[in-house]
Amino acid sequence: MLTMLSRIHSLRAISRLSLKRPLGGINFLGARATFSTHNPSYFATNRFTVDEYPYLKRSESFNRLSEKDISYFKSILASSSITQDAEDLEAFNNDWLRKYRGQSKLVLKPSSAEQVSQILKYCNEQRLAVVPQGGNTGLVGGSVPVFDEIVISLSHMSKIRSFDEVSGALVCDAGCILEVLDKYLEERGYIMPLDLGAKGSCHIGGNVATNAGGLRLLRYGSLHGTVLGLEVVLPDGTILDNLSTLRKDNTGYDLKQLFIGSEGTLGIITAVSILSPKRSKATNVALLGLNNFDQLQATFKRSKDELSEILSAFEFWDREAMRLAKQHLVAGAHDPLQSLYPFYILIETSGSNKDHDDEKLNTFLEGLMTDDVIQDGVVAQDSTQIHNLWAIREGIPEACSKAGAVYKYDISMPVPVLYQAVEDMRARLVKEGAIGDGKLFSSVIGYGHVGDGNLHLNVAATEFCKEATDLIEPYIFEWTARHAGSISAEHGLGLSKNNHLHYSKSPSMIQLMRRFKQLIDPNGIMNPYKYLPLV
Amino acid sequence: MLTMLSRIHSLRAISRLSLKRPLGGINFLGARATFSTHNPSYFATNRFTVDEYPYLKRSESFNRLSEKDISYFKSILASSSITQDAEDLEAFNNDWLRKYRGQSKLVLKPSSAEQVSQILKYCNEQRLAVVPQGGNTGLVGGSVPVFDEIVISLSHMSKIRSFDEVSGALVCDAGCILEVLDKYLEERGYIMPLDLGAKGSCHIGGNVATNAGGLRLLRYGSLHGTVLGLEVVLPDGTILDNLSTLRKDNTGYDLKQLFIGSEGTLGIITAVSILSPKRSKATNVALLGLNNFDQLQATFKRSKDELSEILSAFEFWDREAMRLAKQHLVAGAHDPLQSLYPFYILIETSGSNKDHDDEKLNTFLEGLMTDDVIQDGVVAQDSTQIHNLWAIREGIPEACSKAGAVYKYDISMPVPVLYQAVEDMRARLVKEGAIGDGKLFSSVIGYGHVGDGNLHLNVAATEFCKEATDLIEPYIFEWTARHAGSISAEHGLGLSKNNHLHYSKSPSMIQLMRRFKQLIDPNGIMNPYKYLPLV
Ligand SMILES: Cc1cc2nc3c(=O)[nH]c(=O)nc-3n(C[C@H](O)[C@H](O)[C@H](O)COP(=O)(O)OP(=O)(O)OC[C@H]3O[C@@H](n4cnc5c(N)ncnc54)[C@H](O)[C@@H]3O)c2cc1C
Ligand SMILES: Cc1cc2nc3c(=O)[nH]c(=O)nc-3n(C[C@H](O)[C@H](O)[C@H](O)COP(=O)(O)OP(=O)(O)OC[C@H]3O[C@@H](n4cnc5c(N)ncnc54)[C@H](O)[C@@H]3O)c2cc1C
Repeated sequence: MLTMLSRIHSLRAISRLSLKRPLGGINFLGARATFSTHNPSYFATNRFTVDEYPYLKRSESFNRLSEKDISYFKSILASSSITQDAEDLEAFNNDWLRKYRGQSKLVLKPSSAEQVSQILKYCNEQRLAVVPQGGNTGLVGGSVPVFDEIVISLSHMSKIRSFDEVSGALVCDAGCILEVLDKYLEERGYIMPLDLGAKGSCHIGGNVATNAGGLRLLRYGSLHGTVLGLEVVLPDGTILDNLSTLRKDNTGYDLKQLFIGSEGTLGIITAVSILSPKRSKATNVALLGLNNFDQLQATFKRSKDELSEILSAFEFWDREAMRLAKQHLVAGAHDPLQSLYPFYILIETSGSNKDHDDEKLNTFLEGLMTDDVIQDGVVAQDSTQIHNLWAIREGIPEACSKAGAVYKYDISMPVPVLYQAVEDMRARLVKEGAIGDGKLFSSVIGYGHVGDGNLHLNVAATEFCKEATDLIEPYIFEWTARHAGSISAEHGLGLSKNNHLHYSKSPSMIQLMRRFKQLIDPNGIMNPYKYLPLV
Repeated sequence: MLTMLSRIHSLRAISRLSLKRPLGGINFLGARATFSTHNPSYFATNRFTVDEYPYLKRSESFNRLSEKDISYFKSILASSSITQDAEDLEAFNNDWLRKYRGQSKLVLKPSSAEQVSQILKYCNEQRLAVVPQGGNTGLVGGSVPVFDEIVISLSHMSKIRSFDEVSGALVCDAGCILEVLDKYLEERGYIMPLDLGAKGSCHIGGNVATNAGGLRLLRYGSLHGTVLGLEVVLPDGTILDNLSTLRKDNTGYDLKQLFIGSEGTLGIITAVSILSPKRSKATNVALLGLNNFDQLQATFKRSKDELSEILSAFEFWDREAMRLAKQHLVAGAHDPLQSLYPFYILIETSGSNKDHDDEKLNTFLEGLMTDDVIQDGVVAQDSTQIHNLWAIREGIPEACSKAGAVYKYDISMPVPVLYQAVEDMRARLVKEGAIGDGKLFSSVIGYGHVGDGNLHLNVAATEFCKEATDLIEPYIFEWTARHAGSISAEHGLGLSKNNHLHYSKSPSMIQLMRRFKQLIDPNGIMNPYKYLPLV
């Protein structure tokens, strides 16, 4: 017992692990909350997508909405499921980033797969373009119309259909909010296999449609592995019933996979069956401060070795991200470490035995301190502190968005070059004299999921404009391609990355994608202008 | 310390956990070894598939192999890569179960994706049907020709292309043998995320083509989650280069997913990129004897709670399986428990800290003993004992196959009804008076992966014949459909399940599958007569 004690003690002394000072001060607004504002004036200053991207032309093949169409929709939907009011439409026409703004005149909110089927069949026959919309938290402009596409919102489909307490298989409507599902499972001893900062707003259907990654991917893997089945309505109105709850099923092509990450371009996901793991009894969260990226890599490697099966998150952010988090979020927010560090790591462990986990984490942290790999650190002592440490990480996207017009890049690559992307981008803007007080850009921020080789590179500008775009693109895409990376690790393509697909996929891959799209959506009514390159 | 000791002690006393008596006696022949025999007379008594299944008719649209074709293949392949000798062909024409026998006159063994591309392009233009073949361990007749299809064996493509020691991404040719890859990774501290009894013969390409599940799925998930990328040659010769090593990449439809589990009907997988997890430092294996299936379920639930993140396998088999394992495998094979039990469970844990794992496992087992959930049990004390316990489980398929002509069903369903399938089948054969000494059937055996709701139901007959088939089918498929199960959990469809697909998939799903097949393989040259229903 003596050895143990002295080890914990030395750790405390160096890193103030016991956190006498509570973390309660950190309580970022909205980090896990809803984003969509219902104040239409909020959007009034946003520019229309078509004005910003003049290369976009409305397709001649689509018809414009007529009174006859409205009558048809009124014949199948309750009036509360049809939105035509100009002010109400704003929240559906504008995206979370305030970068894209469409001009839809109609939002439909079906409440069953059958209604979705009727709507799509009609739109397909009448050549009316549509945009499926979940929680509208997507970050690539995929969830809002470009022109006058009809928005089909899944917000009225939010029932949990079944839950199997033995296997953990959850079946629910696509419009269920991620956080609501996680709460539901928490009460039953289970956990959603994915988690993201937008959990208070995003839908499980939107998560599947974007193949969202997020904060738990390191532990529970991607949706391609955890989604057991889907119910999908195809453009011709066919309801594909593949809502299996089986963990294993090798009967034919795994069609559901094609819809995972298809961003509303092939059909509308109306229900999801997903395998939820048991919720761990013990959770630990540590926040560490480090001097350089080499130390960060060393910490990552050692965590895979020493924390191994209990490691459930390994997130990082840089000094700039921490500065913004403190500046743009609620007054009094402070980070629990005494100095500002070039790099921060948030490590989460979850396991079934608190004592074992504590011992593993303490041994691990002690080793890092002894070897001078980390400079400082705290370990949360209760669930409030855990929540508060996570709130820093989860508040970063929002903090960045408050720093101005934020160009967001979400790239993946081999871990060793992960942070070089940030440094090279910064150096480029410095060289161009474009960053600093009174300049076009105010900061370059890096954060992300180290365990997945996934960097969120944010470049904050005074406004979204061609000059700013041209300074970043295609530079960043070329950089990524040169490092064998992906130009979109988890956010998808939407309207902001579709024309850059060739940086990550070969011509034959893109051609095959086009053939699948053509096969399933021959009239191209599903979320047009996006996803696949326009030329 | 006292408490701990007394707990371990009581466990030992009841369950002989320390295993003074070594397990070495169990050493089943070939459990992890190669199956294919190169003695052609071994196959002489096998019946041709076409004689057994007269409904199969050779498609008029395929040409027959000509001298001109042979000349072409000789112009692109070394002579050592072309097999035409009648005796040599037998091993490629016959399947592991000795249930299917084709009549191919030609085996090609390309050594690069380019050669595969040349072959397929030519075959596609000349309307020559082909069968991709990996290790030929498939259990549904998918890997051997029905008529005179050309066999394209991947056996000459067995190079490891790269391994990333930071991320664990392994890139290798499709013809690499699973066990070879696992050994390679073991030396580097990593592990293949899948394992199966056929590991000594099966190829990683075959594993991907069948979406093999196996013994580690419970821990590491399915190949849909762990495969990072594929290189695939399409029938028209296109080489789809999607050999990404990135853990996250949301750029476009995830095309590789469609080839996972496509059983050679869409293209030939020539290389695989797969994410390997860190190999756990500590492994424990326990074998338990139980009195009934309720106890088995209770044990499973408790293992999810108590072993949780260190649980890496939860396999079961029944008394009949144990009897056969002892009877048909090497002389002197004995199981380490003193009596024969109705049910056996093999539990494996793997983690990063041996002491912690031992404590969790002991507490868990002690609880089960105390509550009388398990009757007896042993825990392996070293790697030889671990190997020997696994050898019982892995030897069962082979033991069953020695029991006669074995009808194999590989079904998944909700765990609570898992064993009822065996009981109902047994009851049916008893009622029909078809089982017992001198009868058509000798035994009904159940084993499988409890954690995945996956039962291997084996029905041993004196011979494969229509009478036997009719007593089992479609009964078992109807039973499965009634219990919302899958008629093929992991083995796939091939020739033995394709016409039964409708028991697990709706007409609209099957229709969409046909459209995908038609899109990619319009001439139908890839592995014809299989996978999709013939009518
Ligand atoms: C603060 C914040 C943090 C985030 N963190 C992460 C993160 O860590 N990881 C990550 O991957 N993403 C992250 N995102 C991005 C975003 O939240 C995810 O992509 C999310 O999955 C989108 O879900 P949604 O319901 O809001 O979809 P929406 O934004 O409404 O739609 C996204 C796309 O999916 C389509 N779609 C939506 N629902 C359906 C449906 N039912 N059927 C067919 N198509 C549909 C839309 O047409 C659109 O193309 C974050 C976003 C924010 C604002
Ligand atoms: C003793 C034993 C135990 C088994 N245990 C399991 C188990 O636990 N779990 C499980 O899932 N399966 C199991 N199997 C079944 C079998 O081993 C697996 O399906 C295995 O993945 C097949 O690999 P293979 O290389 O032998 O493929 P093959 O048998 O050669 O081929 C199987 C199918 O895949 C196609 N194919 C093969 N290679 C390629 C390629 N490169 N490109 C395109 N198509 C290809 C073939 O055309 C065929 O349709 C077991 C089999 C045996 C004999």
